Amino acid sequence: MALRLHPFDPLAPYEISKAASIVRPHFGAQDPNFRVITLQEPPKNQMILFLDKEHRNQPLGEAPRRCARVELVVVGSDNHNELFDLLVDLDNDKVIAKKHQKGKHSYIDADYMKQVENACLANREVQEQIRKLGLPSGSTVVVEAWAYATDGMNDMAQRVTMCWFYLRMFQNPDANYYAYPLDVCAEVSEQLVVTKVYRLPTRPDERIHMADRPFDRRKIHPKVMSEYHPGLRPSPRTTLKPYQVVQPEGPSFHVQGQHISWEKWGFRVGFNYREGLTLHDIRYDGRSLFYRLSLAEMFVPYGDPRAPYPRKAAFDLGNDGAGINANNLRLGCDCLGAIKYFDGWHNAASGKPLKLPNVICCHEQDDGILWKHTNFRTQNAVVTRSRILVLQTIITVSNYEYIFAFHFAQDASIFFEVRATGILSTVPHDVSYRQKVPYGTVVAPGVLAPYHQHLFSLRIDPAIDGQDNSLVIEESKSLPMGDPTVHNPFGVGYVTENRTVEEEGGFDLDLTKARVFKFVNESKINPITGTPVGFKLMPFPSQMLLSHPDSFHAKRSEFAKHAVWVTRYEDNELFPAGRYTMQSLGGDGIASGISKRRATGDAQTVRNQDIVIWHTFGSTHNPRIEDWPVMPNEKMMVGLKPVNFFSGNPGLDVPVSTQDMNKSVLYEDNNACNNACRHSRL
Amino acid sequence: MALRLHPFDPLAPYEISKAASIVRPHFGAQDPNFRVITLQEPPKNQMILFLDKEHRNQPLGEAPRRCARVELVVVGSDNHNELFDLLVDLDNDKVIAKKHQKGKHSYIDADYMKQVENACLANREVQEQIRKLGLPSGSTVVVEAWAYATDGMNDMAQRVTMCWFYLRMFQNPDANYYAYPLDVCAEVSEQLVVTKVYRLPTRPDERIHMADRPFDRRKIHPKVMSEYHPGLRPSPRTTLKPYQVVQPEGPSFHVQGQHISWEKWGFRVGFNYREGLTLHDIRYDGRSLFYRLSLAEMFVPYGDPRAPYPRKAAFDLGNDGAGINANNLRLGCDCLGAIKYFDGWHNAASGKPLKLPNVICCHEQDDGILWKHTNFRTQNAVVTRSRILVLQTIITVSNYEYIFAFHFAQDASIFFEVRATGILSTVPHDVSYRQKVPYGTVVAPGVLAPYHQHLFSLRIDPAIDGQDNSLVIEESKSLPMGDPTVHNPFGVGYVTENRTVEEEGGFDLDLTKARVFKFVNESKINPITGTPVGFKLMPFPSQMLLSHPDSFHAKRSEFAKHAVWVTRYEDNELFPAGRYTMQSLGGDGIASGISKRRATGDAQTVRNQDIVIWHTFGSTHNPRIEDWPVMPNEKMMVGLKPVNFFSGNPGLDVPVSTQDMNKSVLYEDNNACNNACRHSRL
Repeated sequence: MALRLHPFDPLAPYEISKAASIVRPHFGAQDPNFRVITLQEPPKNQMILFLDKEHRNQPLGEAPRRCARVELVVVGSDNHNELFDLLVDLDNDKVIAKKHQKGKHSYIDADYMKQVENACLANREVQEQIRKLGLPSGSTVVVEAWAYATDGMNDMAQRVTMCWFYLRMFQNPDANYYAYPLDVCAEVSEQLVVTKVYRLPTRPDERIHMADRPFDRRKIHPKVMSEYHPGLRPSPRTTLKPYQVVQPEGPSFHVQGQHISWEKWGFRVGFNYREGLTLHDIRYDGRSLFYRLSLAEMFVPYGDPRAPYPRKAAFDLGNDGAGINANNLRLGCDCLGAIKYFDGWHNAASGKPLKLPNVICCHEQDDGILWKHTNFRTQNAVVTRSRILVLQTIITVSNYEYIFAFHFAQDASIFFEVRATGILSTVPHDVSYRQKVPYGTVVAPGVLAPYHQHLFSLRIDPAIDGQDNSLVIEESKSLPMGDPTVHNPFGVGYVTENRTVEEEGGFDLDLTKARVFKFVNESKINPITGTPVGFKLMPFPSQMLLSHPDSFHAKRSEFAKHAVWVTRYEDNELFPAGRYTMQSLGGDGIASGISKRRATGDAQTVRNQDIVIWHTFGSTHNPRIEDWPVMPNEKMMVGLKPVNFFSGNPGLDVPVSTQDMNKSVLYEDNNACNNACRHSRL
Repeated sequence: MALRLHPFDPLAPYEISKAASIVRPHFGAQDPNFRVITLQEPPKNQMILFLDKEHRNQPLGEAPRRCARVELVVVGSDNHNELFDLLVDLDNDKVIAKKHQKGKHSYIDADYMKQVENACLANREVQEQIRKLGLPSGSTVVVEAWAYATDGMNDMAQRVTMCWFYLRMFQNPDANYYAYPLDVCAEVSEQLVVTKVYRLPTRPDERIHMADRPFDRRKIHPKVMSEYHPGLRPSPRTTLKPYQVVQPEGPSFHVQGQHISWEKWGFRVGFNYREGLTLHDIRYDGRSLFYRLSLAEMFVPYGDPRAPYPRKAAFDLGNDGAGINANNLRLGCDCLGAIKYFDGWHNAASGKPLKLPNVICCHEQDDGILWKHTNFRTQNAVVTRSRILVLQTIITVSNYEYIFAFHFAQDASIFFEVRATGILSTVPHDVSYRQKVPYGTVVAPGVLAPYHQHLFSLRIDPAIDGQDNSLVIEESKSLPMGDPTVHNPFGVGYVTENRTVEEEGGFDLDLTKARVFKFVNESKINPITGTPVGFKLMPFPSQMLLSHPDSFHAKRSEFAKHAVWVTRYEDNELFPAGRYTMQSLGGDGIASGISKRRATGDAQTVRNQDIVIWHTFGSTHNPRIEDWPVMPNEKMMVGLKPVNFFSGNPGLDVPVSTQDMNKSVLYEDNNACNNACRHSRL
């Protein structure tokens, strides 16, 4: 490699190979299944010194060591999987830490899941149940293997896989089998043994059973109701005319390796199998804002109370991985304009590097008006358009899709947009049952789409003009009226109250107080406003986890209890539901960490400290039929905006908009009236 | 006029002239000051019959009469302004109603406000105070006349105008005088008499006074801190490259008069002096959704408790008018692509028609991905992009700008986006006072930007598959755990509870219950889901009015107390703070209407009735210095989405995205590294 890598750069392919080869001898004759070979980001204290020199253009000296974190599975003497976690020093070719993660499981292994599906279909009892269904000829049974969400019913020492059954009604491999959920269910052991086969409940008053119920043919419905693939659809609408984004001089951003500079912004793009896209060392106009931004976890629990559905609850990062499931983005399809794509690298089970092409795209978008003012005395209007830079990644987790995008704006704000799309997870439903199911929506005959929540954790590692920051909770409150000690003669006054958080903890939103969470640097006072420089979180106001506090769902997803958390920064503390979420039992999450430190007298103060903010948001998704068979995106947006950080509008120097630059076209009415006009004029 | 007008079409210029000429004889020798000549929309019962025939392509028969509503002022015998409200039948050339609106005031008269400014500057006492300020040479005093927000201190029978003083420091007429608020204040009577001149408080502990305090020269600051006009700014950044929207085959919409059809949508565009843009008879795929959508009011109260600042509280629709203050939009500046502009018509004081050019624009935008799914078994991805149709209008209300846009989407959702921009309203501040003011932010030396709220009322007149609709409040609630009567063995179950609202009233949001407000048609059951067809409100979660319930602010802006209101439809009930908001005393708003009907035993049921939903939203705007000298837009978004209205995703037939259609361009890394790269690679 000609170029030296930056300490934040993901592992290069040769480093992945190297890490595997350093690790392999430590396992003798065993053949490790390499699950993860990823960058171990350098300790922050080293990085701060490094970045400081880098941004001052000083000699860099020795860079922090390049290290890899390796996660692998070997089959132990008792034929059980054993998970190991290793730290590898790539500069010195040695393993510096090795830990057997007893009782923990690695994230979902797609190859293994394929084996589970095959084992399931090859099982006599499964075959017998399928036979009893008496399925329509030409249809194909599809097994969807799901990680098992802990419900306390199984020994957690080994993996259990839940197998849900669907029917692909047509021969087309892209037919939507979620339109035909079957009421057969199987459980498969770590050793690929089918341990249980049973029938699913299909009415609210029904439970798991073993009755030999045939497939109800009344469920068969027209393709047009449930197919999304163009090959199975009637011709699409023809009314939409082309719309192209043209950038005659190319984009305004510059990319060097993993570094992007654009419109006073500078930051580094990271990527790993779990979080997918990560952002590092984010600066505006040379001033430090954030050390790291990442989606840290997401939890998707289903609200259907009937066993075995409480086992449907996915940690889409911890169990599935946003990186490993990232789409290969395509030019002209996933974005418009001039697009830069970034590849990701992962590893095969053998330890060889595995390319994940085009997993991140970077492009500009027009975002309407940035600011405008018309002087009503002179009638002179000044208007600037807002250009944003978008870093986007899209993941597929079985049936669902998530589109994640960071938006950088010229006014020094950052937005994190999530769009949920894809196909609803469905369960079989008795077509004779006509009442409303209180925890699901019937989206097609015999197809129930159960209610569920999507709960995301955005990890915000602020570095507001330096690492030592504080979390301030600001509330807007009415002044009392009629209190002789308070000047509020007309009852219209209101003030802000600021409370600086002293200790780690979780906090809720409060609309009635317009509660705002700010990250400030108390040692840097804005010379004009006289207040500490800061940024504020613009939360996406959301309902928190609905599962009972005593449920495994709640114990496993502690972050989902409060909208905003603050913790003291710790290297490697990246995951608010713990590192190992597969069949986790709880107690590894953000709240447990805080409690433990408090219980041991090690309560962490967070004022003027290196802190991390975690924002929980999401949607309580009670499906609409309009979400079927593929869901129009549901948008969620979180923002980060400067609050008295700069000395004025950071986008004030954006050039004004001109027709000369933008070349818009006037629509002429007489062009409009052609045969396509569907509404006649009186 | 060759074409017959549609009953929803705004008055044509010749109708405005006609209305004036019909009205004028009713006032004899008096010379009416015509404030309003606007369409009186036909009674809904007539319109429903008309629209029904129109959409069935049946003979239309007689259309509802064209009527005008006229508001005018004449000077009465006692030299007082007298306001009259008239209804004019344009088809039969007669005045059908005439009412003297005793004690009410028309909206702000720009010509009169100019006279107020002049009278103020010509006043000896004002001149004396200005002289005592000892202002820098070359500077110019600017008087900003504001409508008086009722505070109980004045006789409301006559108009009072508050005159705030600013300094234009430089000769350029576009210099930002809000950067130099002076501490002089004057009050001017209806008859242009300056009744009071005094000095403003400039510290929290100060009150109105008469001390001869000279202008503090420490307030003079560099242009770069406070000027936004390019003529007063250093050169803008040069890093932004052109970005153009090209629609080689033109836009996908069709316009015929005021009717727009686009991607299965059809609706009519209205416009009036007060609401500005209105939308009528909104249908998707031929099915009725909304009878009318409009921004109905907005209230901007300031939180500074010191007299006379409680008089700063603007009804930007009722007092100022969103139509009369709408910007003349410019090609290539306010939007990109192929743009259709609509003109508006208003009237001069004489009753002559007055053209308001380009007050509404209509164009398409790309809105990212509409839906996507990748079949993980075949790796086949299907992705469609979202195109939206935008109807936009921008208003300037003195210092502030609002950008209002309705977005129509291919999935049958509608969004109403508000962007607040423009210049903060400022007050003078003592540069020696170093503490944080609890109700304002110092944005430049001696310049305090007081806290304030922007509270909008979006009026939604649903017609979900017909006029008789119900408001349903849906909440997502955990099932109890451990209750033997409820099946929830693992504590993960949750359900929705639906409550249908029976009587008119106001309601709050509740994030903890994911409370959703739906408008449903209980007589139309979705055959698949088994539930009434409906739409839901996606509110913009906001803090409600902070002013004390006993304050005039609260009494005058009753709508600002709750996030969602439902009332029975009444012709002409369009304004939730009443029709006449200028110096209103309260009691004319939405809550009073409901109470009065209830008190008189005429409580209005709203179940299966023609109902109207009013959504209050906005921002508690505690200025940041980043909002100075011109504010980067602050976005607020309200949505309306189908809920079990259709039989599936309404955007399912949108064609898939292809590079052939979209013509994106691959960014090549080697193009990127030029001299502009500011961050060097290691």
